[in-house]
Amino acid sequence: MSYIKQMFETHPVNPSSDHAKVIECITACYSCSEACNACADACLGEKEVAKMVHCIRDCNDCADVCLATARIISRFTRTDFKLAGAQLRACIQACESCGAICSKHGQTMEHCRVCAEACRRCAEACQSLLAEKPTS
Amino acid sequence: MSYIKQMFETHPVNPSSDHAKVIECITACYSCSEACNACADACLGEKEVAKMVHCIRDCNDCADVCLATARIISRFTRTDFKLAGAQLRACIQACESCGAICSKHGQTMEHCRVCAEACRRCAEACQSLLAEKPTS
Amino acid sequence: MSYIKQMFETHPVNPSSDHAKVIECITACYSCSEACNACADACLGEKEVAKMVHCIRDCNDCADVCLATARIISRFTRTDFKLAGAQLRACIQACESCGAICSKHGQTMEHCRVCAEACRRCAEACQSLLAEKPTS
Amino acid sequence: MSYIKQMFETHPVNPSSDHAKVIECITACYSCSEACNACADACLGEKEVAKMVHCIRDCNDCADVCLATARIISRFTRTDFKLAGAQLRACIQACESCGAICSKHGQTMEHCRVCAEACRRCAEACQSLLAEKPTS
Repeated sequence: MSYIKQMFETHPVNPSSDHAKVIECITACYSCSEACNACADACLGEKEVAKMVHCIRDCNDCADVCLATARIISRFTRTDFKLAGAQLRACIQACESCGAICSKHGQTMEHCRVCAEACRRCAEACQSLLAEKPTS
Repeated sequence: MSYIKQMFETHPVNPSSDHAKVIECITACYSCSEACNACADACLGEKEVAKMVHCIRDCNDCADVCLATARIISRFTRTDFKLAGAQLRACIQACESCGAICSKHGQTMEHCRVCAEACRRCAEACQSLLAEKPTS
Repeated sequence: MSYIKQMFETHPVNPSSDHAKVIECITACYSCSEACNACADACLGEKEVAKMVHCIRDCNDCADVCLATARIISRFTRTDFKLAGAQLRACIQACESCGAICSKHGQTMEHCRVCAEACRRCAEACQSLLAEKPTS
Repeated sequence: MSYIKQMFETHPVNPSSDHAKVIECITACYSCSEACNACADACLGEKEVAKMVHCIRDCNDCADVCLATARIISRFTRTDFKLAGAQLRACIQACESCGAICSKHGQTMEHCRVCAEACRRCAEACQSLLAEKPTS
């Protein structure tokens, strides 16, 4: 359902033919933002919502950070890798925090298990892109 | 790559077993927001950028509206269909405006053709959900 | 602290010298988005969080809608009042729903009282702009 | 017009009575996001738009990063300073990049001068908060 691959293939500024890591990073960031926003709402719907407060806040933060990261990395023609690098590091941190608490809840709450999976994939995609681009 | 289907299947508040239209609407809104953000950047990278100004602005607006719509419709446990309905109508309008100009450019610019496709699918998904839920 | 007034006064496309209503609408939308995001978090910090679930969700929705509205109305050079009108109507709806529940809680929770005030001001500013621009 | 100060004074979780730096950071981030979004549109309206492409992209990035930072720092009850720190660093980077190019244009374009001022203030506020909170 993601159009990013097609977008990159047809972008007027296209210095290389292999953008697999960038595309996976953008897709994983959007997917994680989507999962975190939905998980925060699912947590709000749990009977023992008081126990979910920490998780809701981490999901809200992670949704915001992943979204900003996805949008920035999507602006393909830019070359400010300093900013991209700093934002990727923030995104990895958000996904690790949120993924840790969702993993814990994931044993009893399926939506948290799915969200933890999205966080893990997103952190990996960001790390993989960061490793490729020396960003200062 | 979307986790929304899994999220809905595991949401603690789940009054019905058929959420196909809601899921398609959320997925289409996120995908369209992603495509519009990338298309705005691709348009900025075009040599004759002065001709793309209108398109860039429509893409930016559509990206913002689709994102808000996706996030609101994802908050499944809410029942405020008045707001959902009004936001779906704004989203249909954004997709129609942006889709129209991207369609026109789509004959020569492939990224606009892809974006117009994302807009068309998103408008249809919003209309389909709006038709199901009497919202005002 | 808002730079919108200065931005409008220095915008290259400036068909009129009186933008008071547009500026107040943008400022009120950003302020309301900010208040709703903070109120959702304050509600999460309340001891009886289970009673705040409806309010948290309305605040989250209202924050998203107000933000999209602020960003779209800020794109001053556009003339697509159809979209602006539809988004303003969605914003009024979001502010009315969120303002209603925050008003109710506002008797005992000061952050909800402040948020209700932000919603009221935002709804008024959107209505005032909508009345000026025939949009559909 | 910012409600953040009132929100913090009435937040149920309030470990300290002095939040001046946090409040200034949130206010500066929202204001900068607002200014960058408006400056990107003003740049799009300039006659020689081809010369503004770099600036538009930096403004779009900075608007996204500042917004995510503002929303995260506003979630006062959280204590995940690792994420807050990483996001503040990304925000400083975004404001420095965007501020540098807007400063350059600011000699001839007043909207860029205003935007550069918003970026400078935001970078300072983030740095000041980062210095106070040991975050990694």
